[in-house]
Amino acid sequence: MVAIQNTQIVLANRPVTDIDPKTTFRMQKVSLSDELGPNEILVKVLYVSLDPAMRGWMRDVRSYIRPVRIDEVMRSSDVAQVLKSNSSEFKAGDLVRATCGWQEYAILKPSEDVVKIKAFPGVSPSTYLGVLGLTGLTAYFGLFEVGEIAKKGGPNCTVVVSGAAGATGMVAAQIAKHVFGCRVIGIAGSDDKCDYLVKELGLDVALNYKSKTFFKELCAATPKLIDIFFDNTGGDILDGCLRRIAFKGRIIVCGAISTYNDAVPKGPAYYSALITQRARMEGFIVFDYAKQYGKALEDMSTWIKEGKLKSRETVVHGIENAPDALVKLFKGDNTGKMLVKVAEEESKSRL
Amino acid sequence: MVAIQNTQIVLANRPVTDIDPKTTFRMQKVSLSDELGPNEILVKVLYVSLDPAMRGWMRDVRSYIRPVRIDEVMRSSDVAQVLKSNSSEFKAGDLVRATCGWQEYAILKPSEDVVKIKAFPGVSPSTYLGVLGLTGLTAYFGLFEVGEIAKKGGPNCTVVVSGAAGATGMVAAQIAKHVFGCRVIGIAGSDDKCDYLVKELGLDVALNYKSKTFFKELCAATPKLIDIFFDNTGGDILDGCLRRIAFKGRIIVCGAISTYNDAVPKGPAYYSALITQRARMEGFIVFDYAKQYGKALEDMSTWIKEGKLKSRETVVHGIENAPDALVKLFKGDNTGKMLVKVAEEESKSRL
Repeated sequence: MVAIQNTQIVLANRPVTDIDPKTTFRMQKVSLSDELGPNEILVKVLYVSLDPAMRGWMRDVRSYIRPVRIDEVMRSSDVAQVLKSNSSEFKAGDLVRATCGWQEYAILKPSEDVVKIKAFPGVSPSTYLGVLGLTGLTAYFGLFEVGEIAKKGGPNCTVVVSGAAGATGMVAAQIAKHVFGCRVIGIAGSDDKCDYLVKELGLDVALNYKSKTFFKELCAATPKLIDIFFDNTGGDILDGCLRRIAFKGRIIVCGAISTYNDAVPKGPAYYSALITQRARMEGFIVFDYAKQYGKALEDMSTWIKEGKLKSRETVVHGIENAPDALVKLFKGDNTGKMLVKVAEEESKSRL
Repeated sequence: MVAIQNTQIVLANRPVTDIDPKTTFRMQKVSLSDELGPNEILVKVLYVSLDPAMRGWMRDVRSYIRPVRIDEVMRSSDVAQVLKSNSSEFKAGDLVRATCGWQEYAILKPSEDVVKIKAFPGVSPSTYLGVLGLTGLTAYFGLFEVGEIAKKGGPNCTVVVSGAAGATGMVAAQIAKHVFGCRVIGIAGSDDKCDYLVKELGLDVALNYKSKTFFKELCAATPKLIDIFFDNTGGDILDGCLRRIAFKGRIIVCGAISTYNDAVPKGPAYYSALITQRARMEGFIVFDYAKQYGKALEDMSTWIKEGKLKSRETVVHGIENAPDALVKLFKGDNTGKMLVKVAEEESKSRL
């Protein structure tokens, strides 16, 4: 038996508005025995995914998943490596995607939530939290299932994506542009990000929502109005897009990061455009499509190989920096997937 | 040739917030020649429909219909009687539903907008503006097409209707209750209206939204949450229902009367429940279903005969009182369809 020093970050207080990295979370070091029960596996966390949805998990309200408890390790989706296994399904060295939370090690029981990664050669493990993880799948199912892009897409279809330089937005915008040939307008929070969206990702237009003339620019960029709006931000951007929504337009409500830190958020003032334009706003959670993940990941891998889908990451090092990094995510400091790198992958020969 | 004195009410100023009957509108008397051009008909207005949608028509913004112009007769849907006809389709004495506007007489050219009423014996002409008019049709198509009640309805389905003592809400609530057997909660603005909804219309529960404990009562009345919310009001009621929306719940955005007088309305703060509950908010306009009006009116006539669908009207007399009556509609002074009676129907023998 070996005692492992395990650094964990737990939820100390539920934030009412903004997260305060010093008071919302607490770091603790605990000792973990590597002695495993029947069917258990010991894993080492390599990468932790940081997601806007985490803000919702800290709220004590009815939602799609139970809130994180006070003094519980903060929940996260992670890529981890199996160090020791009592399960016939996993062996030391395997990579898994699992909900380990903000800690260095975890003992898991195989379940639907522990998915063995069939790694492509040369692909970083972090990719399975981004384009080939829940983030990419969120973009995929939002566009296909809620936006019905396979039916509506094409050169006459105008698609707007908010948070377009973020992990999910980036994937949604590229699929709409390079797989379906839509006119795609990305919205982001800095001129650098906008440059990236147009020059690197090939979107038709990118708009900085911090511009004083943002709504005017949005109007100019959407002469045929907006058929599909993939919304990650909510707030004034959602209101602007409601004002430009087309007849029978679709608003894919994926996220509302601009409102997550509000005690009571401001709702979309112009939602009655749904009536006048016979439009639809619909929310979704990627988990509902778990049975279709395989097909989606095949599609996305193909698009990566064909150069239609590029990825980008913003990586912070060390689990102790996760709280600060989460605050940065809400400030929009990241371009692409926001990750914490916790440890290096071990070569299988060493295990 | 006879010169007819025609009293008209025109839009004098676009209201920014509340309608002021004295300054928003202007009354004028004009002379109308009864000499008709080819294919024209002269009609006398019997009943004018007052509808929350009228507030939108006064706004100079992109919508499903062009705004009423300044100095133009205020638009309304009416029941009128043909006095004189140059059209082979219509003869003197016929009842028509048409957009005549706030005036006593009009000369019309037959078009899709002028619909001959196949009157049932003993049915007041006003009914063709209410249950058997666009109001009833709005309730019908909202429930069927947007709410998919034929698929979701039944005793395990909880339906909430706001503005349930209003013309559209009353029809929607009764169809959900007496045709589909759903658990139906009506929301209205007075205890008298709530009594009416439960005792006369047979709804399961009625809630007064002015109660200080409204949200608590809504929670108690919806133990299995809300599967379909037919929303006529918007505002805090919409927010309350979003907080109680069920998994895959539907919000039929029919109207938002509580917000129509706001320069910039307050949006639904809790709209992100659409994400966590995978719910949908969708708007519609009854005109889109014109081809299906016949089938709908047949259904509704049957339900009236079977006692499943009762109607009620609040009638104001004299076209000069239309502006005040419209203000009363926004205050919720009406129960059931709000109408202005302009003239008596003439017996055919007199024409």
